[in-house]
Amino acid sequence: MLPLPVLEQAGSEMTNYRGSGMSVMEMSHRSKAYISIFDETKADFRAIMNVPDTHEILFMQGGAWLQFAAVPMNLIGTTGKADYAVTGNFSNLAMKEAKKYGEIRAAASSEDRNHSYIPAQQELKISKDAAYFHYCANNTIYGTEWKYVPETSGVPLVCDMSSNIMSRPVDVSKYGLIYAGVQKNMAPSGMAVVIIDKQLAGKELPFTPTLLKYQTMIDTDSMHNTPPCYTIYMLGLVLKWVGAQGGVSGMEKIKRERAQILYDYLDGSTLFKGHAQKDARSDMNVTFRTGDDALDDMFAREAAKAGFENLKGHRAVGGMRASIYNAMPTEGVLKLVEFMKDFEFKNKLGRG
Amino acid sequence: MLPLPVLEQAGSEMTNYRGSGMSVMEMSHRSKAYISIFDETKADFRAIMNVPDTHEILFMQGGAWLQFAAVPMNLIGTTGKADYAVTGNFSNLAMKEAKKYGEIRAAASSEDRNHSYIPAQQELKISKDAAYFHYCANNTIYGTEWKYVPETSGVPLVCDMSSNIMSRPVDVSKYGLIYAGVQKNMAPSGMAVVIIDKQLAGKELPFTPTLLKYQTMIDTDSMHNTPPCYTIYMLGLVLKWVGAQGGVSGMEKIKRERAQILYDYLDGSTLFKGHAQKDARSDMNVTFRTGDDALDDMFAREAAKAGFENLKGHRAVGGMRASIYNAMPTEGVLKLVEFMKDFEFKNKLGRG
Repeated sequence: MLPLPVLEQAGSEMTNYRGSGMSVMEMSHRSKAYISIFDETKADFRAIMNVPDTHEILFMQGGAWLQFAAVPMNLIGTTGKADYAVTGNFSNLAMKEAKKYGEIRAAASSEDRNHSYIPAQQELKISKDAAYFHYCANNTIYGTEWKYVPETSGVPLVCDMSSNIMSRPVDVSKYGLIYAGVQKNMAPSGMAVVIIDKQLAGKELPFTPTLLKYQTMIDTDSMHNTPPCYTIYMLGLVLKWVGAQGGVSGMEKIKRERAQILYDYLDGSTLFKGHAQKDARSDMNVTFRTGDDALDDMFAREAAKAGFENLKGHRAVGGMRASIYNAMPTEGVLKLVEFMKDFEFKNKLGRG
Repeated sequence: MLPLPVLEQAGSEMTNYRGSGMSVMEMSHRSKAYISIFDETKADFRAIMNVPDTHEILFMQGGAWLQFAAVPMNLIGTTGKADYAVTGNFSNLAMKEAKKYGEIRAAASSEDRNHSYIPAQQELKISKDAAYFHYCANNTIYGTEWKYVPETSGVPLVCDMSSNIMSRPVDVSKYGLIYAGVQKNMAPSGMAVVIIDKQLAGKELPFTPTLLKYQTMIDTDSMHNTPPCYTIYMLGLVLKWVGAQGGVSGMEKIKRERAQILYDYLDGSTLFKGHAQKDARSDMNVTFRTGDDALDDMFAREAAKAGFENLKGHRAVGGMRASIYNAMPTEGVLKLVEFMKDFEFKNKLGRG
């Protein structure tokens, strides 16, 4: 989902960007007009995410998935070892991909209870010889979210924030590297944003493709080749919108309220139960089920008919999942809760 | 440049794609609505480029530059060696990038005459133990274009067609692999299209990132992760436009006429001289100069004032360069020639 005002602006500027007579899609990435869009987007991102000068902001192609390889290719060289916390599907995939490039160890795993919780700080086994420690801040399939920033005693902290970036303030200075595919909260699909402590760059493995070298991307300001210009422009429009909502603090307030409406209802429901442990609940993905697979299926089908798409949960956890990313209006969640109440009422009657 | 009708359609469909109430930017890549756009785009590409069933069409992120690494990572494993023809800047960069992955040999080079010509078939030194032979079909900086398909005696033929794809018919069956960044003739920047003989996939080097494995992209129909959905949609619109121009045969007729106007003028001019040898002239990039650097600079400056942007040639060749890709109307070239005639008239007077 993207905010409607952002789409409206993009539509109105499609054939003629602010009197230039040109579409942003047609601008050379070296042109003054485009460089101005690029620089403003980067500056807005830095301001909104409060990125310190020690860190560089990179726009890279390939989404979070290509970063699963780029991170170890660039960072593991110092010791040949890295530690990963496995708290869901994507953190597990990131760990598997990293195994091509060095010795990868599971620093923690929530697999024993189907990823319904987040390991506590004292459960993390982070070794001093790890080139970095990697975790995924929000687990879309299981509906859990890290509520604390792991303490790593000097081991660089790497975080995949694809599904909750820009939904709350982040102390970027604590991180060696943050990456996020843009398609959940930031822009149309096809790009990742990387925030990297510049000290960590420049030690990549020899076979790292040039386009995946963080040092090259730093040196060329993400323009070693033609960047995904239009996606960056869209990110710029979204950043203005986030600014108008009060920045990441504003987004945090909105998403807390939005998610709480659903969680409050779930806590009072006698039909639906949440999957995630209460202290690990995600504000971006709310997972729940009735406990009856046939009834879950019926719910997802009827919800789709009523206009609530994609509520079927991932097969790994079953049940249902409501994804409520930044652009989702609170109104949409209120409507969903009304639908759920109605479904609960009817199906308790039918059973009782 | 993109065709105006394409931009107009994209603008009008931005907030509401054909009554869906949704922007294409917001569609899940797994949704029926989006799969239908994706499948139609791929089918149109197959039809327009006449891609045989032996070959798969892939949509990959990272542009041609990431393919400079992906090609050797995927294909060089069979013998550890590959041959490259160096006829310009990008073929040289592709060769340098490939050296990370095996023994790379220059099968031919036009460097001796500043890449103003294309080596003839008998000048190509392609070894039987090459895993593939790579060339770049059109050299943007030097304004040269291959007019024949190299004969390789069974060595798989790999071609970078970034700057002339879809400007003429291609016998795809002769190629092991064709790749092209989309931003010149096909769509907004941020993607490459790869056409691969399926028999060549599945032999990648062990450290190849999953997102760069051709076999994975074949198996997942380019959806191992979220693809650049909107870019693919834009490609779909451009393909409909190319179809309406008579497909690649129509585009070839148009681009021949368009380029010939410029070349005819250059051949008759006493001020301007073309850089490329006549039999190697590109129909996409026309390079020329006056022979006087100060006058070249003046021309580029005055042309920019008159609305002809980006005419300054690359520093490697100097002079001027007119890029006339698929979306450039013939009218634009006629206007440029008028401007050049005028400039020639004034500057001969001034000198004489």
